[in-house]
Formats: sequence, C-alpha cells, structure tokens
Amino acid sequence: MSKSTGEYLSSGPQFAEGEVIERIEVFRRRRPRLLDDHVTLAHGAGGKASAALVDAVFLEAFRNPLLESLGDGAILTLPGGERLAMSTDSFVVQPRRFPGGSLGELAVHGTCNDLAMAGALPQWISAAFVLEEGFPIDELKQIAADMAAAAVAAGVQIVTGDTKVVPRGAADGIFITTTGAGVIPADRTFSATAVRAGDKLLLSGSMGDHGMAVMLARGDLAIEADIHSDTASLSPLVELLMAAAPSTRWLRDATRGGVGTVCNELAQSCGLGVLLDEERLPVQPMVNGACEMLGIDPLYVANEGKFVAVVAPDEAAAGLAALRSHPLGADAAEVGEIVAAPEETVVLRTGFGGTRIVDMLVGDPLPRIC
Amino acid sequence: MSKSTGEYLSSGPQFAEGEVIERIEVFRRRRPRLLDDHVTLAHGAGGKASAALVDAVFLEAFRNPLLESLGDGAILTLPGGERLAMSTDSFVVQPRRFPGGSLGELAVHGTCNDLAMAGALPQWISAAFVLEEGFPIDELKQIAADMAAAAVAAGVQIVTGDTKVVPRGAADGIFITTTGAGVIPADRTFSATAVRAGDKLLLSGSMGDHGMAVMLARGDLAIEADIHSDTASLSPLVELLMAAAPSTRWLRDATRGGVGTVCNELAQSCGLGVLLDEERLPVQPMVNGACEMLGIDPLYVANEGKFVAVVAPDEAAAGLAALRSHPLGADAAEVGEIVAAPEETVVLRTGFGGTRIVDMLVGDPLPRIC
Repeated sequence: MSKSTGEYLSSGPQFAEGEVIERIEVFRRRRPRLLDDHVTLAHGAGGKASAALVDAVFLEAFRNPLLESLGDGAILTLPGGERLAMSTDSFVVQPRRFPGGSLGELAVHGTCNDLAMAGALPQWISAAFVLEEGFPIDELKQIAADMAAAAVAAGVQIVTGDTKVVPRGAADGIFITTTGAGVIPADRTFSATAVRAGDKLLLSGSMGDHGMAVMLARGDLAIEADIHSDTASLSPLVELLMAAAPSTRWLRDATRGGVGTVCNELAQSCGLGVLLDEERLPVQPMVNGACEMLGIDPLYVANEGKFVAVVAPDEAAAGLAALRSHPLGADAAEVGEIVAAPEETVVLRTGFGGTRIVDMLVGDPLPRIC
Repeated sequence: MSKSTGEYLSSGPQFAEGEVIERIEVFRRRRPRLLDDHVTLAHGAGGKASAALVDAVFLEAFRNPLLESLGDGAILTLPGGERLAMSTDSFVVQPRRFPGGSLGELAVHGTCNDLAMAGALPQWISAAFVLEEGFPIDELKQIAADMAAAAVAAGVQIVTGDTKVVPRGAADGIFITTTGAGVIPADRTFSATAVRAGDKLLLSGSMGDHGMAVMLARGDLAIEADIHSDTASLSPLVELLMAAAPSTRWLRDATRGGVGTVCNELAQSCGLGVLLDEERLPVQPMVNGACEMLGIDPLYVANEGKFVAVVAPDEAAAGLAALRSHPLGADAAEVGEIVAAPEETVVLRTGFGGTRIVDMLVGDPLPRIC
C-alpha cells in the first residue's frame, strides 16, 4: 500500500454552515489522475478510481442504454413485458472465513442484494469458480455448503455453474463469480431521477461492520475486537420497507466504499445534494473504536448487510418502523435528507454543529473485502 | 503435468464389430480415483474428473431440479410463462491472444453458445473481471474492445458488470466470467429424453481447431502450423438448423473435452448408444497432422465454434443442408447415429472396419484452453 492513511480520511475541512456552498466548486470536480498505465488496487476498491476505470474502459467499449443506467444490476424487459433484474459480482475476499461470514455466504448474499436493490425478488443464481490447482477439496466442500445454506436462507436457487482450474500460482486459491436474476414486481420502479429535495435517507443499520471484521480477521493489526460481518440477504428487509413506504425512490447497498461512496453516487445521479447528520449515523462502539485507532472513517468502510433508501418524506416514519421491525434492521435510522443545494454533493452536519463535504475516495482503506 | 500422453489417447482396443457389446461392461463403468484431496488441473478439463468434482461438491451441495437437468445452462420459467435460458462461464485461456481469436472474444462467444445450445436467442450478457494489480490498461482496453465487437456481431448487449483487483501474484493477469440470458422460443424444447434410436448426429464443422490453435500459440512445441481457432457465435447456425429441422432433439457445443466428451454426455443422459463413423468426422489436415505428431486424438480436442446436433432421421438431410449454407457450417457432416445398444456408450466405427469404444477422458490433453 503506497497510500498514507491520511488520504483515506474524508478530507474536507470544517466549514461554518453558511460557507459551505461557496467552497463546493473547489472540491466537487477534483479529478486526481485515476487511470494509470496499469491496474492498481484502487481500481477495484469502489471509489473514484474504480469509477474512472469503468468509465474509460468498459462503458467506453460496451456503450449501450442498459449499461449506462448502471446501478447494481441491469433491468431486462422481456417480450411479454415482464421485467427481470440481472446482476453479477466476483468475490475474492481474503481471508475466506471471518467472524460473521465467509466467502461462500458473501457470494450468495452480495448478488441477492444487488437484485433486491434493483427492486427484484432474487430467484436464480449462477456460480462460476476459478480454482487454483492444489486447492483443498474439503475447503471447497465447505464453501459450497456455505453457499447452499445461504441460498436456502435467501430463497434462491443456484441453477447453473462453471468450474475452471488454473495452475498453482495462477490464482489465490479460489475466486467465485455469481450472477443473479429475479423478477421485478410490475408496480415497482426505483430511479435516482425520482428523488426530490425533502426526501429522507434511511440507513438500514450500523456502518462498517463487514469491512472491519475482515480487516481484523487478517491479523495484521494488533487489535482484538469482537466485530462480526453483517453479511446477509437484504431482500426480506426491502420487502418490508416497500410495504410500508411504497413510494420509495431509490435503494443501494453500501458495500465497497461504504455509505459515503453510496451517497456520492446518489448525489451525482440525482443531481441534488445529500445532507447527512453525523450524530444519527449508526456505528457500533467496537467498530467506531477500531476505526478511530486506525484513522479510518466508518463512512467509507464496507458493509454487506446494509442499504441506503431514499423515501418520500411522508412515508419515512412508517418505512423506518418497518425496517426496525426486522432483526436485520434493528439499528436502522433516518440519517439525512435530500437538499436542493449544493448540487451533486454530500455534506455532513457534524456533531460540533459545523458541516464538511463527504467526498468520494480515490481508493478504499480496506482492499479485497468482498 | 504428471500424466503420460498415453492416458489421453482414446484408449479402447480395437474390436471386431460383433465383439463390442460383450466387452462394454468392462470399460463403461471404469471409475478411476477422480476426487483427490486437492484440486488438480484435470478437475477443470471437462472430462471424468470435472464431472466427479461437480457431482461430489457442487451438485451435492446445491441440489435442486433446475441444476440437476444440467446442460450448458439453466432454463428459468417466469411467472408469465416465458422461458429464459441462463448460463455462466469463466475464461482463463492462456495465451490471451491466439490465431483466430482472443480471451475477450471467447468470453462473449462461449456464453452466447451455451444459450444457443439451450435453445435461446442470446440477448444479454454480464461481464465480471478479476484483474491482477499491474495489469496493463492498454491490454484491458483491447480485451474490452474485442468483447464489444464480438457482442455486436453476436447481437447481444453487455448489460452489467463487476471489477475486482487482487494484489500482484494473486491472479494470472485477468479472468473474465460472463453470464448470459436469452428468451427461448415458445415452441422449442431440447432434451436428451427426446432422443430416439435411429436419430442422426450432425456435427457443424471440423474438430479440434480451437484447442490446437491455442496449444501451438503457447510456443512450447516445435510445431508450426497455420491453425486458427474457430471461436464464433453459433446462434445464427442454430436458427438455420431449427428452421430446416424443427424436430431437432438435442444440441451441445463441443468445447472442453471435444466431440468425444460431448457424445459421452449425450449417451449417458439419453441412455442409448452413440455410433460415430470415423471416416465422416471432419478434421482439417493441419489439425490432424499436429494431433498425430502430438499423439492426441482430435475427438477430444476443444472447439469454440462447433456443435453436435441430434436430429430426426427424416430431417437430417435438410438440417445438414441448412448448416452447410452458412460459412460457419461449411464443413458440417452427418457423423453418426443413435443406436439402441450398447447403452450409454459411444462406439466409433473405424476406417479399418473395426469398432472401438470412445471413452470419456479423465482430464484433457490441453488444459486452460478457454
């Protein structure tokens, strides 16, 4: 890692509330050199560098309307009019087993959640394995068992797959790519263009549990803390929310890059501002403590069982109550709102009464966490 | 590679035609020790070891009806009654560029072809990339351009994707996993259970071009030959065949493990015998020559643009003519037929008038060819 910890901190200075808009332009369009001649770890970390790589390489080459409305998945309209969500993710987490979860569970939950965020009911999953020669069959069986249990719990079927083996040294044990599909109910449309100033932001639970659990499980740090990954299938929680807050505008699970990155993507895609209230952002004390020791802002730490929802103002209370009625949403909170200005920017109202800009990071403080 | 070349040869002795059935039992249920404690290259090669791994690990863990009818893809029935095929493949070919094709083209064609073999019209593809830190951006752009061009030519859209980066040494450059989806026309059902004795086998063109092109491109062998991969999207050829031979029972593209393996899978899944006629099996002279020098049977060498079709006897001539009307099917041939006995076995009538059993190989003579 050639980056200093400082680069990973949300780096805007503190402003008095009145000053913030005038200073925005300086920060908003900051474009560091994101696309080097070679792929870097930052390109896979879900921040600005990832976005630059996707823009410059993949969107540029594959340009089509379905891809450009890039969310967590594509929405396919079938000849009969039914809409299907389709989403894919590769999983390369290290270590493959950590408190609260495993590679196999992540591989199922991550794709189920991308479908749920597109409004779909997750139904079918494919699983493709790249295995390194010499990988222990017993561990592979355990990973398959983890995937199977996660699929049963999430109500999805693993319907097709592929296995490739590469020579020793050509892969780090195992990489899993899952792709999911599920039908979107006819009356449901999520879109950033539906977001309005005054809409409320709900966060389904505490921030940073997954990223910190994986980080600590690596054992590189002299920190011991009882932190568990939050990996879970979020579809049941989404369905509860939709029943209580049917006008919900937009959903996104806060994985790589955390809540801070997701809010930036929201601000950029709806063209409005996102105002977060620091004191309302749920963080478990253990996670907060570990983040403080490491100088990492939990706003940017990955989750695997949390999502951000933009809901209509008059449905916010009912939506929040619905989330809290489920164990996965016990710590849900209303954490902010959509504001007309500053446009395309995320601002945090701090505990000290000031505000600061929550910029998108270039990379990620914790690479390879999913 | 610890295996001797001999193990890769189709290893049945020559029988006189009358003897073959009695001797079958000896060979048919041969089950070498396929599932060691660790993953071997043979587990990824599409032969018996691959089948054993999939059976013992993945089918065992994920067991469900959609998965057990395992072809090249799953068939999903939507609430409205439409049927969608879904298929996934990872691509790890080395080298990434070879005469006639590239990793990027394979990644699109391979998944399109799996959909076409399930009877679907390929429409949508997802692309997930695992990149090694340090991978050249220029090569990545070239791969994306190859994929884009292949997608345009095949009439599919790349609609969603994912990018992960792993540290230097944790992957061999780039692995691509594509997953495809496409609608199956309402009147179309392919199934091994529809296959009957007397049905004819069509092969859409010459065998072994892809595997030998990749093998020679590695440069390990002191053989120079002008052999090009046959990588192509087969959907147009399938549609021509279906128009001419609408009762077609079953299709499979002859990728890893080649025509020999595909015919064994067919024999096992339909419970009948497959009788191939050696003299009718198309092989380009260059490929045949290279195979002879290497002691490899072209029956087992991978193709990326060829399929085997089981057609009704009275539609065989029309089907063959339809295949030959397209450049991709110019060398198509009727190569054999379905026989009542010996059950679940592939028998080759040799050029010398004898017959031999075409067994499924344990591994593959040419690993990592897709």
